[in-house]
Amino acid sequence: MNSGTLPSEAFPAGAPTTSAVVGMIGGGQLARMTHQAAIGLGIELVVLTADGNDPAIRAGARHHPGHPDDIEALIGLAERCDVVTLDHELVPNAHLRALVAAGYAVRPGPEALRLAQDKAFARRALGDAGFAVPAFAEVARGDVAAVDRFAKRCGWPLVLKSSTGGYDGRGVEVIRDQTALQSSALARSADPWLIEEHVPIAHELAVLVARRPSGWWAAYPVIETTQHDGICRELVMPADVPPEVSDRVTALAISIANGLDTTGVLAVEFFVATDGRVLVNELATRPHNSGHATIEATVTSQFENHLRAVLDWPLGDTRLCSPAAAMVNLIGGDEPIDPGRLAVALQEPAVHAHLYGKTFSRGRKLGHLTALASNSADALALARSAARSLVVR
Amino acid sequence: MNSGTLPSEAFPAGAPTTSAVVGMIGGGQLARMTHQAAIGLGIELVVLTADGNDPAIRAGARHHPGHPDDIEALIGLAERCDVVTLDHELVPNAHLRALVAAGYAVRPGPEALRLAQDKAFARRALGDAGFAVPAFAEVARGDVAAVDRFAKRCGWPLVLKSSTGGYDGRGVEVIRDQTALQSSALARSADPWLIEEHVPIAHELAVLVARRPSGWWAAYPVIETTQHDGICRELVMPADVPPEVSDRVTALAISIANGLDTTGVLAVEFFVATDGRVLVNELATRPHNSGHATIEATVTSQFENHLRAVLDWPLGDTRLCSPAAAMVNLIGGDEPIDPGRLAVALQEPAVHAHLYGKTFSRGRKLGHLTALASNSADALALARSAARSLVVR
Repeated sequence: MNSGTLPSEAFPAGAPTTSAVVGMIGGGQLARMTHQAAIGLGIELVVLTADGNDPAIRAGARHHPGHPDDIEALIGLAERCDVVTLDHELVPNAHLRALVAAGYAVRPGPEALRLAQDKAFARRALGDAGFAVPAFAEVARGDVAAVDRFAKRCGWPLVLKSSTGGYDGRGVEVIRDQTALQSSALARSADPWLIEEHVPIAHELAVLVARRPSGWWAAYPVIETTQHDGICRELVMPADVPPEVSDRVTALAISIANGLDTTGVLAVEFFVATDGRVLVNELATRPHNSGHATIEATVTSQFENHLRAVLDWPLGDTRLCSPAAAMVNLIGGDEPIDPGRLAVALQEPAVHAHLYGKTFSRGRKLGHLTALASNSADALALARSAARSLVVR
Repeated sequence: MNSGTLPSEAFPAGAPTTSAVVGMIGGGQLARMTHQAAIGLGIELVVLTADGNDPAIRAGARHHPGHPDDIEALIGLAERCDVVTLDHELVPNAHLRALVAAGYAVRPGPEALRLAQDKAFARRALGDAGFAVPAFAEVARGDVAAVDRFAKRCGWPLVLKSSTGGYDGRGVEVIRDQTALQSSALARSADPWLIEEHVPIAHELAVLVARRPSGWWAAYPVIETTQHDGICRELVMPADVPPEVSDRVTALAISIANGLDTTGVLAVEFFVATDGRVLVNELATRPHNSGHATIEATVTSQFENHLRAVLDWPLGDTRLCSPAAAMVNLIGGDEPIDPGRLAVALQEPAVHAHLYGKTFSRGRKLGHLTALASNSADALALARSAARSLVVR
């Protein structure tokens, strides 16, 4: 399925067997799980973060101290590495363009990353390329009249989104009516805003596509996610939707990856509306929460394939190696999660644990549990039951 | 299949989500792959080694600098950890007994570890417990007459083994006749020696059993290994032997684990002789080269189950998640191995790579490749072909 050779240099006797050095901006759980994958591949992962207690550093990734908005730190990272990639989008796009201009390999590139950084840009790019997206408009701060015109066309409620910097539900508000609009963030903050139709959702699906700079790609089986307050809570894989829906979103995700020339893992989130429309919601140009079950449920994880993709190495097999899998995020709530109870959660032999080594706080993703089973309902029941056993009551 | 709860303490807000701290004596590739598994489980792995460039330290395991023969260093390690385990056997058994006497948890315990440290002790213990082993005798340095008597009984050739300290074929010699005996290591070295019949081998099999202090165990599918010069070169999983042979070695391995009260992973190596005898060869009381394919080929790897076992946590599912797998070790030979060629080796999507970050030297295990396929012959062909592509010619 894949081909292509990379130039190789003779291996000097005495040198350690490092196959490549990859720089990653950000040291969160995505970097942590990427480091786990890097160990097997003999890849040294160097993580740029200001916080030496970040999950990836605690797991032993090399630490390049610095802030992602510090161009000198970014250049220092790029100097150490064969390629620079990202664990999050919170890095100035101009800095990445400067790195590329200086000759460093940055994957995904700044244009592709902008799709994840700027929701209005992504909507326009997708719409211009002919992909169906929710009805949307861009509005300036306080421009209540523009929102009103939009609501006349699409109806209430509508969704207000901060164009940039929002993630895990931050910067997203459902506005029920004109009264709610007056007290919304639109009235308070200077962000550029995106308003969207409120899509009545039958399914939220995600498709991950790993893609190399040379154009080779590999798509994962379709995932169904359950979001709450904008945070991914649970997922099952493969999604329990008709084959024509699976085939359609897979084809769309591959088209988007090729059309927008992404490198590394691209996560495409879809809404399947109750009226049957299939709409592209958001894009992430990196390993993604929706793909965490690939660690156990597919032959090659999204983290390993992200590394292989940004290095332009052949991609690993993305097929399922279990009939079905489910994942439940461990999120800080009213009741703390006790890692000392992990042994209890692991009583079911089909359950796999991932703790991120983070400090506890409300709403924070602290880890996830994945369960494998012969069908998605059983897998989800196992994962949920295991997750409940970690909560201190 | 497993049960049991561990006491848990309330999770203090602000504390990182570390589930346990495990100390490992030795920082080689086994510790490296154990660290990879530890990351997911939120376990901090602390490795005692004098060499900060050891594979596990390069992969980011915590470093506890020190020599395994330094009791103070061992106590320092034990103080930091919930349990101490081992990546190799080269630690004085008396030191481990001292740790246990001082109240530290050491798993496997000193008695079980002695089975792997002292081949003569292991042969006696297995023989006394009624397990079939190759005919053997213990001989003192230079006691050629004793060897001669043994040869009269069992015939030439015979196998001369150093009782202690030998691994990967070091300390093992096949002695063809009396002339060869005169120039053998027996005549030169003060080691205690073991002589054994030279078993005509039809199959070399290995069975891994993960076992908890509380007695719960889980056995992996039977593995067939191919050794050369005493080093494991290749393996396939499951072994291509009749079910009655698989069932028999599995039952024997479980009996040995229970009978000798091992904790953690126990690897039992078997000879199936051409005359049909099933003989226990050697024991290793830790993750083992024969189990490397479990990373991809079974639901839970031997490394994760070793951690879970020594912590007395429930064990993960040991079943195959691929119909067949094969592994080929990457061993330093006449032609160097070039990690820069890894991308070529990965062209086959079913191939998985593990580089250990070691410096190259002849005979050294530098990494391994695992391939998954629908049958063991195909898997082996894929893994061999991938391994060849790494060699610089």
